Parts: sequence; structure tokens; C-alpha cells
Amino acid sequence: MIKKKILPPRRSSQKLRIIPLGGLEEIGRNSMLIEYGRDIIMIDAGIQFPEEDMPGIDFVIPNISYLKGRERDLKGIAVTHGHLDHVGAMSYISEQLGYPTIYAGQLARRIMEKRHDEFMGQRKLNIHTIKAGDMVKLGQFQLEFFHVNHNIPQSMGIAVHTPEGIVINTGDFKFDHSPIGDKPANIAAIAKYHDKNVICMLSDSTSVQNKGYAESEKVIMSNLRDIFQNTTGRLIIGMFASHFGRLQQVLLLAEKFGRKVVLEGRSIKTNVDIGFELGLLGINPKTVIDVKDAHRLPDNKVTVVATGAQGEQYAALTRLASDEHRDLKLKKGDTIVFSSSVIPGNERSVQNIQDNFYRHGCNVIHYRMMDVHAGGHAWTEDAKLMIRLINPKFFCPIHSGITNRALHKNIAMDIGMPESTIFMADNGQVMEFENGHGRLSEERVPANYVMVDGLGVGDVSAVVLRDRQQMADEGMFVVIMTVENKTGKLIGSPDIISRGFIYMKDQPELVAASRDKVKQVFAKHKADRAADFGAIKTRVRNELGQLLYQKTRRRPMVLPVVIEV
Amino acid sequence: MIKKKILPPRRSSQKLRIIPLGGLEEIGRNSMLIEYGRDIIMIDAGIQFPEEDMPGIDFVIPNISYLKGRERDLKGIAVTHGHLDHVGAMSYISEQLGYPTIYAGQLARRIMEKRHDEFMGQRKLNIHTIKAGDMVKLGQFQLEFFHVNHNIPQSMGIAVHTPEGIVINTGDFKFDHSPIGDKPANIAAIAKYHDKNVICMLSDSTSVQNKGYAESEKVIMSNLRDIFQNTTGRLIIGMFASHFGRLQQVLLLAEKFGRKVVLEGRSIKTNVDIGFELGLLGINPKTVIDVKDAHRLPDNKVTVVATGAQGEQYAALTRLASDEHRDLKLKKGDTIVFSSSVIPGNERSVQNIQDNFYRHGCNVIHYRMMDVHAGGHAWTEDAKLMIRLINPKFFCPIHSGITNRALHKNIAMDIGMPESTIFMADNGQVMEFENGHGRLSEERVPANYVMVDGLGVGDVSAVVLRDRQQMADEGMFVVIMTVENKTGKLIGSPDIISRGFIYMKDQPELVAASRDKVKQVFAKHKADRAADFGAIKTRVRNELGQLLYQKTRRRPMVLPVVIEV
Repeated sequence: MIKKKILPPRRSSQKLRIIPLGGLEEIGRNSMLIEYGRDIIMIDAGIQFPEEDMPGIDFVIPNISYLKGRERDLKGIAVTHGHLDHVGAMSYISEQLGYPTIYAGQLARRIMEKRHDEFMGQRKLNIHTIKAGDMVKLGQFQLEFFHVNHNIPQSMGIAVHTPEGIVINTGDFKFDHSPIGDKPANIAAIAKYHDKNVICMLSDSTSVQNKGYAESEKVIMSNLRDIFQNTTGRLIIGMFASHFGRLQQVLLLAEKFGRKVVLEGRSIKTNVDIGFELGLLGINPKTVIDVKDAHRLPDNKVTVVATGAQGEQYAALTRLASDEHRDLKLKKGDTIVFSSSVIPGNERSVQNIQDNFYRHGCNVIHYRMMDVHAGGHAWTEDAKLMIRLINPKFFCPIHSGITNRALHKNIAMDIGMPESTIFMADNGQVMEFENGHGRLSEERVPANYVMVDGLGVGDVSAVVLRDRQQMADEGMFVVIMTVENKTGKLIGSPDIISRGFIYMKDQPELVAASRDKVKQVFAKHKADRAADFGAIKTRVRNELGQLLYQKTRRRPMVLPVVIEV
Repeated sequence: MIKKKILPPRRSSQKLRIIPLGGLEEIGRNSMLIEYGRDIIMIDAGIQFPEEDMPGIDFVIPNISYLKGRERDLKGIAVTHGHLDHVGAMSYISEQLGYPTIYAGQLARRIMEKRHDEFMGQRKLNIHTIKAGDMVKLGQFQLEFFHVNHNIPQSMGIAVHTPEGIVINTGDFKFDHSPIGDKPANIAAIAKYHDKNVICMLSDSTSVQNKGYAESEKVIMSNLRDIFQNTTGRLIIGMFASHFGRLQQVLLLAEKFGRKVVLEGRSIKTNVDIGFELGLLGINPKTVIDVKDAHRLPDNKVTVVATGAQGEQYAALTRLASDEHRDLKLKKGDTIVFSSSVIPGNERSVQNIQDNFYRHGCNVIHYRMMDVHAGGHAWTEDAKLMIRLINPKFFCPIHSGITNRALHKNIAMDIGMPESTIFMADNGQVMEFENGHGRLSEERVPANYVMVDGLGVGDVSAVVLRDRQQMADEGMFVVIMTVENKTGKLIGSPDIISRGFIYMKDQPELVAASRDKVKQVFAKHKADRAADFGAIKTRVRNELGQLLYQKTRRRPMVLPVVIEV
């Protein structure tokens, strides 16, 4: 990460300012502010899953320090769709911001509310339901929502009318002319912005490395139909709980082919509950059965829909693969469909569970063998079409790391946008617009990670993470030295507790050598009357660290403790 | 991992036994034994890079417990090629086995020797140089080496003539009719086995998920040539040091296009040294220059060849990307070529360094954009061709996890091999052959992981790894209770040392609550006179653990220590 200078914000100019808080240097943590004069609105507040160098962290949320003291200026939060990388942080920031009104579609609303149930002691989220086509006035802004396709229904782009022109955030989108359980993107509504003054467009870069148009869900539906038709044993389908569209497809097909559906994974169950509640599923609720009733049915009457297609440690599919599922056991003839792509970084875990399925003699079908998954994001041609439809003056690629955003920039330049009109802002970097001119300023607001670990939000610091990594790689080694208060003399032999380093019971020589080393340090200390226990501890840390490295070529974290008695 | 029963080995039958020690449930750690009567030979002894659940581990080596007490029966070790997943464990096992003779090509020999230089205090490896076409008699076995293609020259398959028929290990292979810096695979020599009695073939499954024939290096060479031709700035090429073939190509092209080459990364330097020494590079040594001399040359005269195309933490390319390289700084106009595939599990690290290159305004070319890398392994059609050429009676897919081996099995069945002749052995599982019959026995020899961490081989146990993971995820919490020996009373307040949990200085309340909890436990203990310090420690661990979980939803490793004074 390159260090950035954070300048103090200037607050009361009559400029239009767009401030991305996340999602421009990573996948996830999508959130941005739009500011004019004193008025501010936020679009989305999502979580990011932790990087490899964040052991133990649950997820990362957007940094909202910029809003501190300006809670009253925040006129509302608008939501593009119900995925957690867009709404998952809402329960973490809402209280701090004084429960601002959240404008969201019905489905996103229910997803946020279900999640919020776990936040005991908080007030309810203040959500106002909107739908595509609605207009909402928030301070000096007027928001207009338009329908796009994604892999969850009710996905929307947002046009924000400001005194300086229209700002459009596409949300996550693709164009699907034949979606399943959803309407096609409202291209006509989007095209209306073409001749209006769109000062800046912020558009989804997640999948622009793919050439052509994103595949229609109809193709996936047809392939899944073939699988349902040709499978004689149990059919086990692994997917993201958040792929609401896929959930709809699988449930429809199961009912059509006379299979009952067992839901495995809490988030899938929650989403199916919401689906029934909002009438989005179009099937008989009795198609869904309890796992215990599945055993009474013949294999060809059973479909299992499970979370864990990424090989997540405790997910249903993972437990199934490793024979650790309480109610289900694999058998030869089971067919496993991975109806999802593999998120970068998860390849090995996915490989491991696939290996286990093959080990059990199951058939495995995944997206590299057959189109059983389509992403929900724009490919090159979708991205071009969006630019052509909206015809923005300025453009900032969002929703990805720099690589995909740079590719998106190239796409825009390929179809004629001048380089000077494309802003490769970093998270926190302010884009300013005034009198039809736009610039990427040098001003940066705080956008660094806020990490969530258990109940703690932002309390895991870089120091704590560094310690975790050192202990993970090399273990730790605590030396407790009991010292006579008056004389400063070591009493007896130091106690040693070590974990994650070497199994100490097998290493009596190393333990003895370590104790000797500590005694030596104390003996030398005797001569050096100026030294205090702080100095002794530093010496023990260094000299013992050296000894251990020399004997083992490992550098455990050495923690000397002096107990004075 | 599924648990396997280990049966005691039967030792003196006159059967042919093939015993894979590694490489059948993972990529790497390739090693197998072939046994007839008392005689044993080993083919390859490679390392495996650690899995995600092995923090701090350097790598894993094959388990050679089966050879304990039978060192004299081991007639030699034959090597297919010089990659570390085939020869990297040699220095770890050779001494234990009494320095058996290793039969290897010249290049593999020098790679093993250079690596062995780091093993101070050991004797030299006992290596006998062979080349394709050679025959070697080892006990009752006669070994014949034949040339195949891979991404390192002098790659060989090995035919082992035994009293029970011929066993063929293909090594890593592809068929390349137009290789660069190498000869085409000797298809005629391989075809000679077709009408001999090949009782069992063991063949490379690494890339059989790809349909068609593996791409020729000539295509890659031609694409790289285009890049050299069209690049005006500096050209920075990231690759595996082990891709000797690619190294040859890049050096040839650099010289041809008048660029000097800076080598970055110790393993690349070592391999180029070996290449010059063995006359494998075909360029003027002066083409290679020191990094310090590169600054005097114009950008279009400089090529940097660097390790780290996988985003490895301390590799040259990674340091370059994060501005941490001592001698080189990125600039706009640099072109970075990732001339390697991405090893599963490294996708995120690679993405991170690519992001950094884009951030600096560099051009990035990788294998998804252009064929700048070809793998060294058989695709479906190569695999079929090998089966057709050799016509084995039995077949065991090797070199991969179960998934790819199952695909390889399907390929063999597709072209007519009966399922009963294909053995999906696990690591350690013995294949037996007698009177022309073969079977996958239930006998298993030890094949579990032997982990290398610093100087320690096999001393990191599952317990140590589990501790590392717990400390990585949740941190640790040491409570030191000073207790009066005679009365069992707690003296003063317990000392607390915590790392990787929460930054304790910010949490005075939690520290106070923890101390109170310990005091409570001691107070309760007073009433319960039967309890000793062991029982107290257990109580502190449980009750304090509960308290911390309740307050933070984290479960640090709680380590209670009693100091008696």
C-alpha cells in the first residue's frame, strides 16, 4: 500500500464533490459520498472480506471519519442492491451516524433488516422502501433509481441530480435481455440521460477483463435444466447464498423436475425465507423440506442447495465433502454442481473439496466444464454500452482493484473518451466539479481499513495483526523470570511457556540452553548496576532470540516477563 | 484428509510393488518406490509447498519411514528432471539413507549440488550423471531413460525393467514438436515400449483438465519476440526461476534485440550460472549485467528478469511493485510481462502486485491477455498419446490431487482402458503385481507430511500448527499468577501479557475484569481444598476464556501460569 498524505477537508464550498470511501482499490467495501455545499448523501455501505494478511479478521467496513461532526449534513443513504459488499456495513455505521434514512428496494431492505436482528441493543434501521423509477429529494439532491441486471433482483443504478449536473452510479450491473426471475435492464430509462448533463458516471469494473457481453441467465438456466434432466442420483448444488437469481432458478427447476429441496446453510435459508415472504420465488413452499425428511425420499427426488462453493471452512458443502456433516453423507452417484465462480484466493480450498467429492466417487460439474454460472457484472461490451447510453462528461471506474479499473479506463478511451476526463481516484480521493469542469483533487479523506473482529470494530490495529502473523509463522516464547525485589537476583530457574514454535517437551536441550542464557544475562547484569529490569528484558529478548534463531532458524516472538517478589 | 489405517509392511515377497510416497494427493512432494523382492529403487524426491493451514512451514518432504532399516536394499534414486518438486528433498533424505547413488541428468545434478551447498556439515551428494538413452542396472532392476519435453531441458521419463515387466514413470511431460533450447520428445523411443510388456505406467496429470495439445514453446517465443520488438521502454519479465526453458528464450531474445539483462532473484542468478556453465544458454555472458550498470543504459536497452511472478512476499518483482527495491524504481512506460501461470492460491497476491504496476502507470501483459506462458505438462491429447504409445497393462495417474487424477482416469477410459486396470492409489498405498496380475492393495506405508521449518525437519507437529493457527486468528493471553507456596494464596494482582488479541493499553476495563476473574477463581478455590494448581489453571483457562469471549466474541489462547514463591 502506498502511503497517502491526508489533507484536511474543506467544508463549505459550493462545489460538487464525489468521495469514494471504498471499493476503488479492492473488491468490496463499496461506499461513496456525494457532497454539494453542506449537503451530503451516501451511496451503499458494504463490507470487504479480509485479505490474506489479516488473520482472524471477520471483515472490513468503510471508514466514515469524514462524517464525524457532520451527521446532520448527511441527508440519507441510497442503496443499489442487497449484496453484502454494498449493504453489509449498514448495521455498523448507522448508529454512529444517528440512524440516517436508508433508501433501498424491498429485497435489500429485508436483507439488511434480517442482518440487523443480530445487533442487539441497537435501534431499528431507518429504512424507506423505494423501487426503480422512484424519485427522492434529499437536501439539494434529487435521486432517481433505474433498473439494471445483476445476480440479485431489484438491482438499481442511481442518478443523482445536483446543481452541478447529474452524477450516475451504475451499481453492480450487466445487461441481460433474458434474465430469469427479473426484468431486463431498463435501457430506455438509462438512455434518457444521454442528452442530459451527466457530469460524472461511476461504473462497475468487476468483470471488464472479460471480452464480449456478459452471458444471459437464460443460458445458465438451460444448462441447469439439462443437469436436472440427466441426473439420476442426488443433486447437490453449491452456490453463493447471495446469488438470489440462481436460488430462484434452482428452486424453479427442482419443483419442475419433481425434486424436493433441502436447504443447507443459514444464509441460504434466510434468503429463501425472504424470497417466500416477498413472493419472489414462484414455487410451492412445500417444495422445500427438512433434511431429516430427505432420507425417506429416493435419491432422484432430492436436491440439496448448499453454501460453501468457495470451500469456506464451516460451510455446508465443505462439511459434506469432509464427512463432517451431521445429517448428510455423500455416496457414489451423487452429482455436485459448483454453480459459482471461484473468488480469487479460494482456488485451493475449492480444489480441496472437489478432491474430496471425487474421492467419494461423486460426479462433479463446475463452471470450467459447463456454463453453470454467469457472473452479474458488465463485460467489455456491456461497459461500452453503458458509456454510450449515458454519455457522461467525466468517468470514474469503480468496484475493483486498480488492474480492472485501468482496463475499464482503456475501454472508455477505446470508444473515444479523452484520458483527461477519466479519473483513477484512490479510495478517499476527492473528485471536484465546478462550472462544468472536473478535476481529481489531491485532497484525501480518511479511507483506511476499519476492521471488524468479533464484537470489536476498529480495535484490531496494525500492531495486533503483525503480532498475529509473527505468532502464526514462528510461534511465541514467554520467559518468566522471578526476581528478588531487593537484590535484583534471579530466583530459581526461569519458567518458559512456548506455543507454535517447537514442541518443547521434545527439546529438553533447547529449554536448558534457554534457561542458561537467561541466567547469563542476569550474571552480566550484576556487573552493570545501571541497568534496570527494562534493560534486562531487552537483553533477554535479543540474546535469547539470537540463540533460538541459531539453533532452529526460527524467530518466535520472545516475551520476557519479570515477576518481582 | 480422510484417515487411513497403516498396515505393517510385508517385506520379502517376490512381487513387484509400486509405492507412491507423495504427489498423488497434491502438487509436489513427488516420490515413489519400486520394490521387487528385497531390492528397492526410488524415483524422484521432491518438495511440496505448504498448504494454507501450515503457517510458517517452509515446505513438506516425502516420508521415508518405510526405508528405515532397509537402507541397504535401496539400490539408487533415479531423477526425472531438475525441478524442486522432484529433487528438492534430496539433501534432506540423502544422509538418512546413507548417501545412496542418485542417477540424474547434468542439469538436475547441478541444481541439486548448488542447493546442497547450503547443507553444511553433510557429505556431498553421491550423484552419477546420466542422459536420455542411458541404461543403468540397479539390483534386479534395469533403468532406461527417455527424453520428454517439459519447461526445463533434459527432462526424462524412466522405464524400469523388472522381473514382472516394465514400469514406466513418464515424469512431468508434454510433447513439443518445436521446443526452444531443447529437442522434441523422443516419440520413437517411447513407442518401442508399445509391444513390450509394460505392466504399469505412471503418468503426469498436472494439466489434463486442459483440452487439446499443450502449446509449443515456439508460439510463446514468437509472442515474446513481438513484445521485445514493440516495447520502447524497459522490459521487466517476471517468471519462475525453475522455468529454465523460458529463461533461455528471454536471454536469446534480449541479446537479439540488443538489450542487456539484469537478473533479479537469487534462484534466477543460480540457474543462469548453471546455464552458462553447462553451455545451455547460447548467448554472450556479457549480455548479463549488474543492476548498477543498467542505470547508465537507455530504457530500451534494458531487460530485467525477475522472480516473483506469483507475488511471493520477498521476491524481486514484489519488492519492485511495492517500491521497496533497493536498486530499481518503477517508472511510467515500463512494461511488465508475467511469463508464468498463476499457481492456485496465489491469485490475490498476483492481483496485488499487478495493481501496483498499474498504479505506477506501467503496461502489464499476462497470460490471460496473450500467450506469454505455456505450461510444461500434458493436456488431454498428450495424455492420450502417451497411453497409446506405451500401451500399458495397468495405469496409475500421478502428479496431482484427486480431481485431476480422476480426469486423467476418465481420459484413459475414454480411449478404451478398462476401469479395473486403472489404480487411483493414495499416497502410501501399495500397488502389487504378480504373474501379470495387478491389484491396488489395502497395504499402506507411512506417507504423512514431514514438514520443514528452518533447521527443523519433522519437528513441527499438528499440535504446533494448530497453536499457530489459533494464535493467528485470535491471539494469545498469558496470565501469570504469583502464589504463596505455603498458603496457596494469590499474591498481588495477576500479570497479563497478551499479543494478537486486542491492544491491551486501550482496554483497561477488560484487563481489570480479567484480573478480578482470576481473583474470584482463587477465592472459590479457598473453599475447595482438594483442588491443586492444575485444577486452578484449568478453571482460570475456562472462566477467563468465557469472560473474554463474552466481552469480545474472540477466543484467544489463554495460558495460565502459576509461579510459586
